[in-house]
Amino acid sequence: MLTLGVDVGGTSAKAGLVDADGTLLATRVAPTPRTAPELDETVAGLVDHLVGEARADGREVAGVGLAVAGFVDRDRRSVSFGAHLPWRDEPVVERMSQRLGLPVTLEHDANAAGLAEHRVGAAAGARVAVLIALGTGVGAALLVEGTVFRGAFGVAPELGHLVLVPDGRPCPCGKRGCFERYCSGTALGTGADELVAVGEDFSTLRATWERGLPLTGRDVAHAAAGGDGLALRVVADFAGWLGRGLSLVADVFDPDVVVIGGEVSASAPPFLDAAVRTYRAESPGGGHRRLAQVRPAVLGGDAGLIGAALDARERCASRP
Amino acid sequence: MLTLGVDVGGTSAKAGLVDADGTLLATRVAPTPRTAPELDETVAGLVDHLVGEARADGREVAGVGLAVAGFVDRDRRSVSFGAHLPWRDEPVVERMSQRLGLPVTLEHDANAAGLAEHRVGAAAGARVAVLIALGTGVGAALLVEGTVFRGAFGVAPELGHLVLVPDGRPCPCGKRGCFERYCSGTALGTGADELVAVGEDFSTLRATWERGLPLTGRDVAHAAAGGDGLALRVVADFAGWLGRGLSLVADVFDPDVVVIGGEVSASAPPFLDAAVRTYRAESPGGGHRRLAQVRPAVLGGDAGLIGAALDARERCASRP
Repeated sequence: MLTLGVDVGGTSAKAGLVDADGTLLATRVAPTPRTAPELDETVAGLVDHLVGEARADGREVAGVGLAVAGFVDRDRRSVSFGAHLPWRDEPVVERMSQRLGLPVTLEHDANAAGLAEHRVGAAAGARVAVLIALGTGVGAALLVEGTVFRGAFGVAPELGHLVLVPDGRPCPCGKRGCFERYCSGTALGTGADELVAVGEDFSTLRATWERGLPLTGRDVAHAAAGGDGLALRVVADFAGWLGRGLSLVADVFDPDVVVIGGEVSASAPPFLDAAVRTYRAESPGGGHRRLAQVRPAVLGGDAGLIGAALDARERCASRP
Repeated sequence: MLTLGVDVGGTSAKAGLVDADGTLLATRVAPTPRTAPELDETVAGLVDHLVGEARADGREVAGVGLAVAGFVDRDRRSVSFGAHLPWRDEPVVERMSQRLGLPVTLEHDANAAGLAEHRVGAAAGARVAVLIALGTGVGAALLVEGTVFRGAFGVAPELGHLVLVPDGRPCPCGKRGCFERYCSGTALGTGADELVAVGEDFSTLRATWERGLPLTGRDVAHAAAGGDGLALRVVADFAGWLGRGLSLVADVFDPDVVVIGGEVSASAPPFLDAAVRTYRAESPGGGHRRLAQVRPAVLGGDAGLIGAALDARERCASRP
């Protein structure tokens, strides 16, 4: 028996057939359209296609899990809002399950990724697991004894907009000094922009900057991998902020495992060791306190859809 | 049937007889001694006395709950460390239950206070409740669906040493800019010291300061109540930091109720409204997000022992 996960992001929707071990057997991608009816259509098309593939192999699909880049209500039946999604207060579970003729479950994408890393990834066996997903912004998930913690109103844990620097870098959220302005793919670019503008070091990033293009996290990661001194400074700064973020996460959630995921984590090893050093230095308490293991994610960009599929499997199985 | 709670603090131990509604029927206090055997003796003396009082009234004591100002191991049988307690890695539950001939339970004091406020106080009925106890430092507790969350290693949630101001006020913990350096009774005194030293305003606090005495939170609260302009500025600053702390708590835990307790909360109304205004301003998300209710604690300084007694009641009752 298989289940299907669909990661519905702002740019594209990616569906995958997943088995009980979390192995991804087949995938299919489509761009995310601009209206809700079109998005329903796109998701249904992806699902129908993969259900057809499964049947051609003689296997049945028992349920569909949706992971969305947006707010999910607390009973996980509707999507209230996603900045880059056309769904607004949409009863997605009811509508899609009627349309597909299959049980449908819904989860926030970071929660789905956290669930996947807990079930079949880097947080396997953790009692209290935190996923920090570093991409354009910062996503996060908390799993306590394997269960996703979602808070009273379904928005916990939100780490990206914690103010770590009073009167710091302005954030589109309206505040200043938010964590994700210092520790995300976007922050890598911002940090490089700031240093190049000051013009202290020669850097391979200067040419891009002089063409008036904003530097991206990818530019910086690439330059750092090539040994560019300025890019390495930016990455070191980023690692310091990640270490402070880890220290905060340890204080508030006291996890045994923290998984660093998201696009930026693909280049995790170069910065993760430095971040963990800062984390240890910022977490006093000596012999009276145990610290969390910090590990790079192992499921990469497919964590959300694998988690959605595993969520659908668990919740379908638990039905009477 | 009654239970007994004992709040074992660094200065004194206070015991109380508590009924099923959380009502405190009788109390007894003793100074906290310096050695572990003496502390055992002190606690046993308090308990024996109150058990005798209960029996004189024809009532039985079914169990004893201890609330301690220190780290409790995850299975809550021993106290590993408390900065102001002589117990060090002591198997308190086993030893005291043998000595008293009664079931004994153990809890961190902030968790006990949070439990009391949830069962019979300001957080009654909350799905996700956070207690923030403002005293010499900052204590905190998180209750999810009524159950105390303690993290993987038993230290969550620790809010006092979150770094809110990089390179800010030095903290005895070794870091700088910790939350409790800006938002605690101690911080009220520090804030007044800083402003008096600058000498901008005339203040009734100046006389104390000129005698070389450190200003206390109590001094500041008293001066603010008397309309002292400088003290009011300090309280306003404190309220701003509390508001930022509330915003952080809302992001990480997404509670429906936050209770502000601890000694400082006795003067809560003057600063709580201002703190809540900052909290709302610092929590963007518009109509898509519900915010927690922020309420002053109702059980005052007895919350810890009432919570310990209720904890003993619940855990004794749940035994086979």
